[in-house]
Amino acid sequence: MLYCKRNNQEGCSVTVHSHYTEKPYSITEYYKMAPGLNNKVEKDGVSAKVTSIHMSNPHLNSMKEDILYHFDLGTVSHDLPAMFGDVKFVCVGGSPWRMKSFIQYIAGELGLGDPNADYPNICAGTDRYSMYKAGPVLSVSHGMGIPSIAIMLHELIKLLYHAKCTNVTVLRIGTSGGIGLEPGTVVITKQSVDALFKPQFELVILGKTVVRSTDLDEELAQQLLQCSKEIDEFKTVIGNTMCTTDFYEGQARLDGAFCSYTEKEKLSYLKDAYEAGVKNIEMESSVFAAMCKLSGIRAAVVCVTLLNRLEGDQISSSHDVLVNYQQRPQKLVGYFIRKQLQV
Amino acid sequence: MLYCKRNNQEGCSVTVHSHYTEKPYSITEYYKMAPGLNNKVEKDGVSAKVTSIHMSNPHLNSMKEDILYHFDLGTVSHDLPAMFGDVKFVCVGGSPWRMKSFIQYIAGELGLGDPNADYPNICAGTDRYSMYKAGPVLSVSHGMGIPSIAIMLHELIKLLYHAKCTNVTVLRIGTSGGIGLEPGTVVITKQSVDALFKPQFELVILGKTVVRSTDLDEELAQQLLQCSKEIDEFKTVIGNTMCTTDFYEGQARLDGAFCSYTEKEKLSYLKDAYEAGVKNIEMESSVFAAMCKLSGIRAAVVCVTLLNRLEGDQISSSHDVLVNYQQRPQKLVGYFIRKQLQV
Repeated sequence: MLYCKRNNQEGCSVTVHSHYTEKPYSITEYYKMAPGLNNKVEKDGVSAKVTSIHMSNPHLNSMKEDILYHFDLGTVSHDLPAMFGDVKFVCVGGSPWRMKSFIQYIAGELGLGDPNADYPNICAGTDRYSMYKAGPVLSVSHGMGIPSIAIMLHELIKLLYHAKCTNVTVLRIGTSGGIGLEPGTVVITKQSVDALFKPQFELVILGKTVVRSTDLDEELAQQLLQCSKEIDEFKTVIGNTMCTTDFYEGQARLDGAFCSYTEKEKLSYLKDAYEAGVKNIEMESSVFAAMCKLSGIRAAVVCVTLLNRLEGDQISSSHDVLVNYQQRPQKLVGYFIRKQLQV
Repeated sequence: MLYCKRNNQEGCSVTVHSHYTEKPYSITEYYKMAPGLNNKVEKDGVSAKVTSIHMSNPHLNSMKEDILYHFDLGTVSHDLPAMFGDVKFVCVGGSPWRMKSFIQYIAGELGLGDPNADYPNICAGTDRYSMYKAGPVLSVSHGMGIPSIAIMLHELIKLLYHAKCTNVTVLRIGTSGGIGLEPGTVVITKQSVDALFKPQFELVILGKTVVRSTDLDEELAQQLLQCSKEIDEFKTVIGNTMCTTDFYEGQARLDGAFCSYTEKEKLSYLKDAYEAGVKNIEMESSVFAAMCKLSGIRAAVVCVTLLNRLEGDQISSSHDVLVNYQQRPQKLVGYFIRKQLQV
């Protein structure tokens, strides 16, 4: 387990190593760097490993100031280590409202505050993203689609790096269209695949196409599945998630402004996806997986399915049913965080 | 000019034809369909052409209900012709705050209401997009990146179609990075090109790559340039706009979470772009141009440049300077609409 548990013993001398920096820390130093909740260490001692954010940009350290433009934060204008140094879990999702609701929920679950309290939006100076914090949990909205979440992740990864955060887990909680699943089923992503069912993310950099891996942390996915079994309130599966660049034609919907294919052709494509192991379709998981992997951050994608795409295209469940569905990834991730922190 | 001017004569019998439906309307019927501002007809009569929204989806008319999910609007729950039938200009931009500010500005310019009035958000039931209306002008936010604006445009085009709107002009007002231009310069897009400088938009539909044209209306671009000359307050140029899927690596920035190239390689790429006629870089124009063209909607992209990318990557101008820059596309488009409506 990457999250190092903490006790109140002083002078604990277990030496831990960063996965990337190879800098040794004593557990005492580690605790100073990770002033999270008051957790207990495992009785038989802990072989803890400090994983820093891996920054693959040699230009960054020579910059006098780094302005995180879309967060309205910066290294000169803000004391990022003081504001964010204790962050251990970052939950991200498309909708700003949902991410505000999540911070209230998790604060209540962790006993950190009144769930009805009005948590301030840390990014109140901009309308691009919303950000909320409760103890070691950060909740950030990312809008819809690969480019929107990519801008957020570039700035989030730099924020965690500048803040000297360690052992961070990032979890995307979202909504999706299911394939062959009962609506309301939660899917934990094994691999994110593109619209050709390939487990990769492509980006043109300086005129050349770069291909990146979209693998997610298998151990984390299993831990989340176990949490769902313990909650025992809704069905959860592990499977592949197809990440598309369009919601309508890109996801074989018949109800967009344009449609040049028949229902039969649509179903044939979705069945091909199903046979390739695709359980659900959304629009952010590939770049999310790729960027977290490049930064050495363990990451998971937990999305609820709002409909079964083999049966239709329009989301027609009642408002109350949809609200219940959308709470499932929050509930699962909230339970996981609580368990990790041993609250 | 596509915008049909109106007078108060009754029983005017000029027959006009839809560009797409070929259904003839009398001018009287046309006026009923377009209850916009009270404009004067040209004295020598008008050979008006009614251009309806072209809907390239044969499935749509057989649907009992069309739920525009990301707008929280629908054909059964809302009377879309009554709400939107008079819309002639749709202005879209990434930021919800900017689109609210635009509706206040344009309402003042057109003498439709108090610019300080609080215009209600028509999409208040969702946090995906914001939408405001003043007379014949609709203002809609679209978030950041191709997928985000594409979802909005699918639903906007369907909304305009269901509302039976005619002769609609859609204008994207936004921000961008300039290449070789003084910051604050406004760029009207001639062609939107991809990261390989090709004037096309690619989308995978049912496993096959479809390539679409990204041409924009040349006459409209010239009309907008003329408006800028008449305003005479800031520099405006017509040129190509590069539309990328990433803000950092995709735009050759050195300040993202990842960077595997040197400053020299970055500048070489940006200079190649400059030589290909690229004046600015943003993240929505290609799909915007492609979707408007497919729908028979005349469209323009008007973006201000916040910095000169040949000189740096970070946006470091003061808040006040940036606010002034961001008002320029609003001002230009506001002037254009006023001129078109002869207010």
